[in-house]
Parts: sequence; C-alpha cells; structure tokens
Amino acid sequence: MAAPKQFLDYVDANTDAFIHRLSEAVAIPSISGDAKRREDVMKMGRWLEAELNKFGVKTEQIPLGKQHTEGQVLDLPPAIVGRIGDDPKKKTILIYGHFDVQPAEVSDGWNTEPFQLVVDEKSGRMFGRGSTDDKGPIMGWLNVLEAHHKLGLSLPVNLRFCFEGMEESGSEGLDEFIASEVKKENSRFKGIDAVCISDNYWLNDRTPALTYGLRGLTYFNVIVSGPGADLHSGSFGGSVHEPMTALIALLGKLVTQDGRILIPGVYDGISTADESELELYQKLDFSVADLEAAVGGKIAVSDDKPTVIMARMRNPSLSIHGIEGAFSGVGAKTVIPATVGGKFSIRLVPPQKPDDIRAKVEKYLEAEFAKLNTKCKLKVEYLHGGIPWVADHRHWNYEAAKRATESVYLKSPDFTREGGSIPVTLSFAEHLGVNVLLLPMGRGNDGAHSTNEKLDKSNYIQGTKLLGSYLYEVGEITKA
Amino acid sequence: MAAPKQFLDYVDANTDAFIHRLSEAVAIPSISGDAKRREDVMKMGRWLEAELNKFGVKTEQIPLGKQHTEGQVLDLPPAIVGRIGDDPKKKTILIYGHFDVQPAEVSDGWNTEPFQLVVDEKSGRMFGRGSTDDKGPIMGWLNVLEAHHKLGLSLPVNLRFCFEGMEESGSEGLDEFIASEVKKENSRFKGIDAVCISDNYWLNDRTPALTYGLRGLTYFNVIVSGPGADLHSGSFGGSVHEPMTALIALLGKLVTQDGRILIPGVYDGISTADESELELYQKLDFSVADLEAAVGGKIAVSDDKPTVIMARMRNPSLSIHGIEGAFSGVGAKTVIPATVGGKFSIRLVPPQKPDDIRAKVEKYLEAEFAKLNTKCKLKVEYLHGGIPWVADHRHWNYEAAKRATESVYLKSPDFTREGGSIPVTLSFAEHLGVNVLLLPMGRGNDGAHSTNEKLDKSNYIQGTKLLGSYLYEVGEITKA
Ligand SMILES: [Zn+2]
Ligand SMILES: [Zn+2]
Ligand SMILES: [Zn+2]
Ligand SMILES: [Zn+2]
Repeated sequence: MAAPKQFLDYVDANTDAFIHRLSEAVAIPSISGDAKRREDVMKMGRWLEAELNKFGVKTEQIPLGKQHTEGQVLDLPPAIVGRIGDDPKKKTILIYGHFDVQPAEVSDGWNTEPFQLVVDEKSGRMFGRGSTDDKGPIMGWLNVLEAHHKLGLSLPVNLRFCFEGMEESGSEGLDEFIASEVKKENSRFKGIDAVCISDNYWLNDRTPALTYGLRGLTYFNVIVSGPGADLHSGSFGGSVHEPMTALIALLGKLVTQDGRILIPGVYDGISTADESELELYQKLDFSVADLEAAVGGKIAVSDDKPTVIMARMRNPSLSIHGIEGAFSGVGAKTVIPATVGGKFSIRLVPPQKPDDIRAKVEKYLEAEFAKLNTKCKLKVEYLHGGIPWVADHRHWNYEAAKRATESVYLKSPDFTREGGSIPVTLSFAEHLGVNVLLLPMGRGNDGAHSTNEKLDKSNYIQGTKLLGSYLYEVGEITKA
Repeated sequence: MAAPKQFLDYVDANTDAFIHRLSEAVAIPSISGDAKRREDVMKMGRWLEAELNKFGVKTEQIPLGKQHTEGQVLDLPPAIVGRIGDDPKKKTILIYGHFDVQPAEVSDGWNTEPFQLVVDEKSGRMFGRGSTDDKGPIMGWLNVLEAHHKLGLSLPVNLRFCFEGMEESGSEGLDEFIASEVKKENSRFKGIDAVCISDNYWLNDRTPALTYGLRGLTYFNVIVSGPGADLHSGSFGGSVHEPMTALIALLGKLVTQDGRILIPGVYDGISTADESELELYQKLDFSVADLEAAVGGKIAVSDDKPTVIMARMRNPSLSIHGIEGAFSGVGAKTVIPATVGGKFSIRLVPPQKPDDIRAKVEKYLEAEFAKLNTKCKLKVEYLHGGIPWVADHRHWNYEAAKRATESVYLKSPDFTREGGSIPVTLSFAEHLGVNVLLLPMGRGNDGAHSTNEKLDKSNYIQGTKLLGSYLYEVGEITKA
C-alpha cells in the first residue's frame, strides 16, 4: 500500500465534510446546454477555482471564446487550469474533469429535487444531477488536495488540472485551446507525463474498472426527396414514387438483426480476437444477465459472454436512430412526406478511420439506391465523426491505477473498453502524446444523463482514496 | 338548358353580393380542431341558420353530444338540419356541407390574412381559409336559395339540408345521428331520393368533374419494442437486438418502389380494367405532366396515363407515413429507441374490406417478423379503417349533374374517383340507401387544408349556377 495511513484515515474521518462539499457543488445547476443557466456554469467554475486555491493550487481562467446559441451570443465558460508542484524528480500528471451537467427537472421523473444532493442512508446512494457525472470525481480530487494540505503532506506527483464547463455540450472551444497551448514555448501543459480522466463508470455495480479504449463514430443522414411538398396519401398514394418507401428499403440494407454490418469493407483490418483476448473478456465481471438487466430486456445478441462483451467494446456497430421529416407524432396522419432523412451511425474500433468508413458508406448507399429504380433523389450527409482510441494498458499509468484499485478495493479491476466516445480523451492523447488513463469513480448503474442520477457513498469515499492512492502508486512505480 | 334564364341572370347580377356573403363566412374562424375556436364554430352555425331562414328554409339545431378534447369537455357543434318544399310530385334531394374549417395562421406561410377573403382581381382568385373547403359550396346553395326567394320562383325539387361543424375533426357525432334518425318513424331524412355533396375538387384546373368513387382505408401502427428505455448507442450498440433494425426490415417488406403491395391476398377480387374502362381513363382531362406539376416532382410511377390514373383512383396503394418513438429531430442524437411504431396505411378499392385486409396484414407482419429472428417484440395496432365506395354513375342523379355541367360549362365533366375518403359519403350511402353524388365546385389546385387556400371567382359564380341547374335537371329528368 503506497498511500500513507494518515491520508486514508483523513478521508474516513472527513466523510461528512466531503459529502457536504459534493452537495454544495450539486446545488449549483451548471447546465451547459441551457443558455439561461450559463451564469450558473460560470459560478460553478468560480466555486471550483476558489476550492483549488484554498489547497494551494495556482489557477487561471482560460477564455474559450463565444458561443452562438438560441439566437444569442454567450461567453463560453472559461476552462479552469491549475498547477501544484514543480519537483523535477516527480512525475507530472494532468487531471481532467468537467463541472457542467446535463439538464434535469423533477417533471422528468426524478424522485427528489435534482439540484439538491439527497443521501439515502439505507442504500448509501446520493442522488443529484452531477453526483456521478462529473462533480463527484472532481470533488474526489479536491478531497485529496484538502487532505494533503491540512495534513501538511506533500503530493507524490506534480499535478496539473484542466477543468471545463462545456463537456455536456460538445466541449466547445477546448480542443482548440489544447491544440494551440501545446505549441507554446511555455505551455501550461509542458512536462506532463500522463493524463488521468475520471468521467466514466464501472462495467457493473460490483467491480472497479480501468478503461483503456473508446469506440469512434461516424454519423450519417440519408436524405431521400421526391415531391415538392408533403402529399396526401389519399390523393397521391400509388401514383408517385414515395421517398419513405425508398428510404426504408435503403436503411434495410445496412445491418442484420444480430448486428452484422452489411457495408463492404467496413470490417477491413479489424483483428479477430485470439484465445488470450477472449480469455480477458471471459474474466471480466460482467454477464449476459448483467447486460439484459442494464437494458431492461432479454435482447442480448448472443448467450456467449465474450461475444456480447466484444460486441459492446471491441467491434464496430451500426444503429439506426430515427427519421427526420416523416410523421413522428401520435395518431394516424395520412401524409406522404416529401423529404425524409434517415439517421444512423457506426461505432468504430481500431484501425477503422472515419474518412475511410465514410467513403465506403457513401459508395454503398449510392450503389444500393441506384438498384431501387426509384425516381426519388438521394443525398448522403455526413454529420460528424471521431476516431476510435485504445491506450496501452500495460503502461505505468495503468499499472499504478491497478495497484491503487487493489489496495483500496482489495480486488483487481476490470480492464474495459467503452462503447461510446469521450472526445477530450482523444484531444489529450493526440496533442500531448502521452498515455491517458480513464479511472472511473462511479458504478455502471449510476444513471449519468438519466433521471435519479446517483453516486454511491462508498464509491465517493473509496474513490477519493483511490484517486489519492493512484498518485502514490505513480510516484512509487516511477521512482526506480 | 333546364334552369330558367331569370335564375342565371340573377346570379350574374348579384356576383358582388355573393362574394360578400362568402367573405362574411370566411371571417368567422370556425376551426373545429381548436378548442379555443369552438365558440366560432357555434357562431358560424348560427350565422348559417339565419341565412337559411331568410330564404324560407325551416331549420333545427341537432345536438350531437359532448367532446372530450385537450383535457376539457366541450359541446359538439350542433348539426344544422333544414327543409324547404314538400311537394310529393317532386324529388327530394339532401344537401350536405360542413361549416367548420382547418386551422390557419399567417405564420404557416399565408400571403394574406387567412380569415379575411382577399380577392385578387387579376387572377380572379379569392383567398381565404374555407373559401373552397367548404364554405364556398355552402354559400353556393345559399345563393341558389336567395335567387329563388327573391325572384319568387319555386324550387324544382324538395330540399333537405344537413350541415355539420366537425367535418375537419372526424365528423364526431354525425354518423350516430344519421344512423338513429333514419330509424325514426318521422325521420327528418324521410323521403329523400338522392344526396348531393359538394366538398371535393376537379381533377385539374380546367375541366369540371363528377365524382363517383372514393378509396377506403386501413391504418396500422407496427410497434416493435426491446429494451426497457432508450439506450445510448455507444454503450449498447452491437450488444443488443435493436427495435429500429427490426422495424425497418419489416416496413421494407410491405411495398415495392413502384407501389406493388407485397401482402399476400391484398389484391383478391379486384378486377382488371378492361378496354372500355381504360378508355374512360384515357379520356379524362389529366396527364402525367399534370400529376407531376401537382406534386412538384418528376416521380410519377409510370409514363402511361391510364396506369397513373388507375394508381390514383381505382387501385389500392400503400404509404409509409413515419415512425413514432424514434429520433425525429434535427441533429445527431445517438439513441437506440426502446419502442418504435411504424405507421402505414393502405387505400382500399372495391371489393376490398377493411376487416379482411386487416387480417391479411396482421398475418403477414407476424410471419415476416418471425423470420427476422429478433428478440424484440412485435405488436400490430389497427388504428382505423373505412370501406371504399363507388356509386352508380349512370343514375339520374349523375345524369342531372352531367347535363347541368354541360349547360353551365359547355363541356362534359370528367367522371372521377377520389383517392382519399370523405366518410360522410358512406354514412349517407349506407344509412339512406340512396344514390350519392359528389359535385365539386372548386379546382384541383385550390389548396384545401393548405396555405393560401383559394376559390376562383368563376368557380364560385358558375358553380352557383351549376348547383341551381343541377336541381332543375333533376326535376326535368325525373318528371317522365
Ligand atoms: Zn461526464
Ligand atoms: Zn456526461
Ligand atoms: Zn371539406
Ligand atoms: Zn377539408
């Protein structure tokens, strides 16, 4: 155990104060997606900065420019950048977190006031918007800083911080800041040896996880048009080629019911899992029943555990999200929609590249559309893309996190890959060129972005120990 | 020419007063679909009743019960039922019309205030909500009544009137009233020989039409469900069977691009058009170019005129309207929708019956869904249905209308069938058991239900003459 007993005892002794810290943070409704709440996001940034300063962190507010939204021009919330420690003999770790949250209203189905942390003592669950995503983990770092400051302990590593207030709204401005900052001679990110991001979740609600991969994405809108305006199906049904008929036929050619993508070349270069990789998935603390409990339906693509886990983490997938421009309300409207856009996306894994996949998708859609022999017109829009990411999980950054997990939780972490994307991970990996670790605090059932978002008290308190222990393990491993 | 010159001259001489009558009617925003406008629908009914009374028609307001809408309980607008003439030597004709209108707001794209009749003297077009659907035709009947009243002419037939104020909202209460009324000993509908409804349009903007057929309808919602709630495609894409994938596959099995319905047995009993029928379509004043101009796109299913016309009027058709429950907004949401409902409908022609078609559709959908091998669940909802209708167009009622058209417009009418449905037609045909004639006043490009709805001045004035002349032709033909 690398972390000093003093530190661990301090965490246990200050549980109530740490929960109070989280409740102060949750009480600020820092919703980045709501222009009316922008001032609350700013306030949350100032609150965070003040806390960092209390514990000896030097901070700066980095302006990220303007945002055009809802017909207004708003200041983007500045990034809060901080530093503590400059010992050349120590490693330097960059910590990322976001202090903005998703919208939440009681009327969405919350059992409690979302912007008030409510602790259910029986279950140990602490409910509130941002409790797990991502205020809990940020408070974890503050708790670590407080403990060291109050105990007069010096930190085992130099720390750099980059906190943003726009993560839930596309991290507007952040990638540009990181990209330009790293090029400066006296870059604020100079000398960083590794990055640690605590903004995702365990695979389940039992076993801590370290996450070393994220899938990428390509998102398409397949637009089919025909008449000049919506038509009445009574007057025109049968006499014209209908865009919906063509779109449905086209969308039907994308993927099989069990998830096999039908676009030629889309699997090119993706390796087949060998025995040792399959074994890795077999060992994860996750079952097909866990998946079906999480999704609330007996709809797993397979009864085989590694197959299901790979489908989720290490294989590409294609989902059809919906149709824009067609009738989508309740009731029975007899419309022939004039222009319809089918939205679908493909999750990518290495070595898939968005541009290459985009070209293959476009070529395939055009060829299949031509075969339909419809007089309607096709236009394929590429809405956005992001590359997949996989980190070296044998790096000391992961080894430190693994040892910290084992010392705090007394069990080995699951090494997981996430099916979704956390774009800032890629920004740091790409621009800083260092290892990035995803070190989750919360559980898979926390309900980030959902109603009744929660963080378990034990995850918060043990998680605070985990974050601190991780820093000590980094110091220890890299001392040699 | 059966109509007396006096009458025709009166119409010409009173053009301005007749337009003023229409402008008074248009000025009452009698939108049946908007609870806030219910009092305007009532007001419109009272206005109409007063006009009828002025010209010697005895009227009654028939309560049609209550409506539960938008969380309120509203009185349905009473039907305005009237009678004039009781000469046993004359035929008795029932006139139907509706005094409610579709919603309209300038912001929808109107060039003028929708509830103010604006006459463009250059084009002769009179713009306003309800101008052609269905206040113009109702005013036409009032004009005929006024002329006879002022000229001291007795009408050539006995007239009965049934005007409703809920047609644009499903004719709530009317069918029940008709069904129960005909059973009464002293029924208000006793002795009716035929019905005339002026509530549809010419096939084009050149040639008057008589309409003797309407397609029926069956409307389905194909619901596919899987997970307990919407999922994030990053977290779960690939690992579960997705409802949208299954729904798209299922909807893709319904109809070919050129409109051939793939449900077994759906064409059972539908006759093939013989030479004489094809010739009838060939003679209609309507071209493939007319169709493509009307829909605003070169998307006709065929270059062959009879094929296109039959596809529109005399063959069944299947249209996919949209999907409820999927992502339908702008942008790029990465959701796996939990439950999605595909809406489609089939237009029916004799001898198709909604119940039979429903059974065939349900059987087919269930069989095809089973073949998909998805773990998602299927539920087929039948939203509503209506039988198709075809009248005997060699009946004296049609012959009278044909002669009246020839005398007023100096050309033979197109005998048309409509692709859509006008449910009240079926109510009268079924409960009264007499011939029903659809005698349109407006043109195919009037834009009923659309922005900038209009009625051409010539259609209104010549149409008034047509309605009057039709009554005289009925009197003449049936005198023998
Ligand atoms: Zn987050
Ligand atoms: Zn989030
Ligand atoms: Zn109408
Ligand atoms: Zn209408």
